[in-house]
Amino acid sequence: MRYLLYYWPGIQGRGEFIRLALEDAGADYVDVLRRSSSFSLPEQVFALPYLVAGKRVISQTANILQYLGPRLGLAPKDEAGRLWVHQLQLTIADWLVEVHDTHHPIGSGRYYEEQRREAKRRTADFLAVRLPKYLDYFDGVLRRAERGYAGGGYLLGRACSYADLSLFQMVAGLRYAFPVAFGRLEKRHARIVEVHDRVAARPRLAAYLASRRRIPFNLQGIFRHYPELDSTRKKSKKT
Amino acid sequence: MRYLLYYWPGIQGRGEFIRLALEDAGADYVDVLRRSSSFSLPEQVFALPYLVAGKRVISQTANILQYLGPRLGLAPKDEAGRLWVHQLQLTIADWLVEVHDTHHPIGSGRYYEEQRREAKRRTADFLAVRLPKYLDYFDGVLRRAERGYAGGGYLLGRACSYADLSLFQMVAGLRYAFPVAFGRLEKRHARIVEVHDRVAARPRLAAYLASRRRIPFNLQGIFRHYPELDSTRKKSKKT
Repeated sequence: MRYLLYYWPGIQGRGEFIRLALEDAGADYVDVLRRSSSFSLPEQVFALPYLVAGKRVISQTANILQYLGPRLGLAPKDEAGRLWVHQLQLTIADWLVEVHDTHHPIGSGRYYEEQRREAKRRTADFLAVRLPKYLDYFDGVLRRAERGYAGGGYLLGRACSYADLSLFQMVAGLRYAFPVAFGRLEKRHARIVEVHDRVAARPRLAAYLASRRRIPFNLQGIFRHYPELDSTRKKSKKT
Repeated sequence: MRYLLYYWPGIQGRGEFIRLALEDAGADYVDVLRRSSSFSLPEQVFALPYLVAGKRVISQTANILQYLGPRLGLAPKDEAGRLWVHQLQLTIADWLVEVHDTHHPIGSGRYYEEQRREAKRRTADFLAVRLPKYLDYFDGVLRRAERGYAGGGYLLGRACSYADLSLFQMVAGLRYAFPVAFGRLEKRHARIVEVHDRVAARPRLAAYLASRRRIPFNLQGIFRHYPELDSTRKKSKKT
C-alpha cells in the first residue's frame, strides 16, 4: 500500500507525527505537498493533515495514527491495546494544542506579534503548571510500564508504539522552543528523555532525522522559539 | 454490562458527551461522583472523564465514545465507518477546546476574572473566524450525507451516531454561552439546528433532558455565559 500524506510542506507541525510513524516503519509513502503545492481540501476534511490510503481519506492526526498503527507494527492489534495507545496519543494531542497556544493564545489566524503580551502570560502558565503536569503523567506511564510483566523502555512496555514516536517529537520540539525552561524540567524526567533517545536511535528514524526530509523547526510551526517567552525567571510569579 | 462514569458532578463539561450516549442508548450506568465525591484518579488517566467497563479503564472523551459507540448502537461496526465518526468527534473535541479557551485563554487553572481582557479578544476571534469555520464544515458534512444513498438527517446519513449527540450538545452549549452571536449564526445553518432538534426529540434523550440528571449549564462548565463576551457588535473589527 502506498500512502499519500497531505500536509503543509514548510513545517513539521501535526504532519510530523504521521511522518515519524511512516518513516520508522519504512512505509511506502509520498509527502504529496512537498512535491506539488496545488491541492484542494477534500470535503470530509476539516484541516490538514489527511492521509489517502487506497480509497480511504482519513483525517485528524490521532485518527490517522490509529489507522496506521497496527498496519505499521506500531500499535497492538487487540482492542484494549489500541484504546490505550490511542488514549495516550489523544493526551499528546491536547498537550500539543497547549504548546501551540503559548504563542497564539488569541487567534491562530493572527500574527504572533499581535498577541505577544498575551503569549507571555499564557506561556508562563504553561511552563509553570501545565507542562510539569504532562511530564509527570507520561513519567508515571513509563514507570508503570517498567513494573509491567513485559519490561519497560517504551510507553507500552518493550515495544515501541506511535505514541512513543510522538513523545520523542514533543521532547524535540520543547527543546527547540524552550531551551531554558524545558532544559530545566527535563532533568527531572529521565524516563521521558530516555524514550526520546531510544526513538532517535532507531535505525530508520536516525536516517530520517539526518536527512533533508526532516524539515527543521522554524517560526511557522507549532513549536516556536521566541526567546522572550522562554524566560529564565521563576515562572510561577504573578504577571 | 454496567458502566461506571467518573466525571465532575457539578457540570456538564466533557462528561456530558458520554452521558448523552449512555442515556440515548438506555445503557445501565452509574454517574459515580454524583453519588459519592471521594475518588482517586487511576494512574493511567490524565484527566476526567474516565469510564470503567468491567476490568477496563478508558479515558479521553472521544476514546470513550469510540469504545461505546458500536456497543450502544451509536456508531457503525465496520472500520471505515468507525474511523469516520471518530474523525468527526475529534473535530468536535477541537472545537470544544476553542469554546473553553474563549473564557480561559491564559490558564485553565486561573479565574476568569484574571483573564477577562484576553478573553474578550479571544472570543471576538472565535466568534468571527473559528465558529463559522466549524459550522460551515459540519453543514457540509450534513449536505453530503443528504446526497448519500442512505438519505440524510444525521451526520452519517439516516442513523444517529454519538457524533450527532455531540453536535446537539455543541448547539445547546453555544446557545447558552452566546445567545446573541450564536443566535445570529445558527440562522444560516439550518441543517445543524435540525440535527439538534432531532436529537432533542429522541424519546430517551427528551426524557433525560427534562430530568434532574441533566445538570443545568452554569459558570463552572465549558460553556459559560458572560454577557460581556457575547457582544452584539460586529466581531471582526480590530481590538
